[in-house]
Amino acid sequence: MTSTKDQKTLSTAQVHSLQREAPFDLSTYLAERQAQVEAALDSSLPLTYPEKIYESMRYSLLAGGKRLRPILCLATCELAGGTIEMAMPTACALEMIHTMSLIHDDLPAMDNDDYRRGKLTNHKVYGEDIAILAGDGLLAYAFEYVAKETKGVPAEQVLQVIARLGRAVGAAGLVGGQVVDLECEGKLDTSLETLNFIHTHKTGALLEACVVCGAVLAGAEAADLQRLSRYAQNIGLAFQIVDDILDITATQEELGKTAGKDVQAQKATYPRLWGLEQSQRQAQQLVDEAKAELASFEERAIPLMAIADFITNRTH
Amino acid sequence: MTSTKDQKTLSTAQVHSLQREAPFDLSTYLAERQAQVEAALDSSLPLTYPEKIYESMRYSLLAGGKRLRPILCLATCELAGGTIEMAMPTACALEMIHTMSLIHDDLPAMDNDDYRRGKLTNHKVYGEDIAILAGDGLLAYAFEYVAKETKGVPAEQVLQVIARLGRAVGAAGLVGGQVVDLECEGKLDTSLETLNFIHTHKTGALLEACVVCGAVLAGAEAADLQRLSRYAQNIGLAFQIVDDILDITATQEELGKTAGKDVQAQKATYPRLWGLEQSQRQAQQLVDEAKAELASFEERAIPLMAIADFITNRTH
Repeated sequence: MTSTKDQKTLSTAQVHSLQREAPFDLSTYLAERQAQVEAALDSSLPLTYPEKIYESMRYSLLAGGKRLRPILCLATCELAGGTIEMAMPTACALEMIHTMSLIHDDLPAMDNDDYRRGKLTNHKVYGEDIAILAGDGLLAYAFEYVAKETKGVPAEQVLQVIARLGRAVGAAGLVGGQVVDLECEGKLDTSLETLNFIHTHKTGALLEACVVCGAVLAGAEAADLQRLSRYAQNIGLAFQIVDDILDITATQEELGKTAGKDVQAQKATYPRLWGLEQSQRQAQQLVDEAKAELASFEERAIPLMAIADFITNRTH
Repeated sequence: MTSTKDQKTLSTAQVHSLQREAPFDLSTYLAERQAQVEAALDSSLPLTYPEKIYESMRYSLLAGGKRLRPILCLATCELAGGTIEMAMPTACALEMIHTMSLIHDDLPAMDNDDYRRGKLTNHKVYGEDIAILAGDGLLAYAFEYVAKETKGVPAEQVLQVIARLGRAVGAAGLVGGQVVDLECEGKLDTSLETLNFIHTHKTGALLEACVVCGAVLAGAEAADLQRLSRYAQNIGLAFQIVDDILDITATQEELGKTAGKDVQAQKATYPRLWGLEQSQRQAQQLVDEAKAELASFEERAIPLMAIADFITNRTH
């Protein structure tokens, strides 16, 4: 990385060139992208009358988080030869959709959670009625935002993105995964097939949309979209397996202390089906396969490669 | 109308020509369009795994009703020189969005209704969790369906439709209207300005989208879109005023019998602000103004003219 002093005496193009030659640092990359996404999200949804609904939508949309979904979308758009500007409205829309799913998932009729990331959930602050409407508002706005704000991309490609976003969040995606998850609650005999269905739909479909939509916006070819789709499916499932592993590890370390996790343990998980060791092996294999899909993109795939590794190496 | 016997000996074009010359009959027109919309809706959402969510979505989407929203969309597309086929995916999407708003509106955290059109509400049949997800699924699918299924329309126009649909249902439209409506619950001192805001957003915004999107798909010019937008805003408000009038009339006739309506009467309404007579005059004036907007479309506006009259003349 170049120092602040150097940047003052170099042109922007020179700085970018130097930055490209510097070894890739994932945490710097993620922090930079996260800041860009935060700024874009903040300006995407200004406060206006009736303020209460906008406050509620902004409360959850701007509640922090790693912003991994929008970052994946921006990364694949760049990988496929596009710019951050082309993908930013879709990146924001993906976070709006993700936020909607969290608000509705936290409702008393669903998971009934009072806290998320240490903050009160939307319905605990604004009431259930407003929380339902805030989710609806965010979902509708996501599509409006992509349709209206995407610049420099042929309209046909924007339509493809909208179709993919709709499919990823609807009954053929996230909603379908949640329904099967609800049906399996408290059932420990859930099959591997069903467990895979839940995760490839509940979290995998939207992750895939993030990765593929970025490339669609940049005009990537079908073969590249397929490679990226398989990359996304693999890291999505690996992410979930690692989640399950960390949940068990955490429970063992804090044994007797966290009564809530015992209840959570009534859920079917990969370690329950495979044991811890095989789960770890499977997660690593999925990440290796994900990275193998990116080989043809050469150094342009460095950020996506690093994100794949990040998933298995994380400890929380 | 030509008899069935005549139709057998005439070409389709001749029959259509004869039908055009026959005096326009609104109930025949509405019945024909309704049947087309029902068929399109039925085939838009096939039952697949996980069946429960598709059953829930279909239960409410195919629960009948006048299908006025999709019919308005088809009518303005034809008025502006387009075909029914061009507008049918958007017409279906409008009904999916309307259905989503009804499912979520009926939830215990919102209006808490057990019945709609004589049938149990979605959450009474499938549970609150599934009802929330069914609404989300319908909303997402509406956008996917327009993006994927619209044929014979330039992609830029389809994007415009998607942006308008999103705006009509989000915080700048339906959701915003519902929020202000919730805030005004039990308040009898609601101002005319606020009452207008509620209705132009809660029902008016989607009605306007129906009318304008049909014309956008047909490639109508900005001036025509503005005329149609004013037509829609006027009939939307007239519709609500007539609703309020009928609610009072019905209450008076059935006095003492319907305790539920007394509670409903705690709401701010137009007759409460203006009295019955002025409300009737205002509704008629709005319908007259709506029809005046259509003058330049000449006989192509006959269906929309008739629908405007239908709104003030209805008795239920």
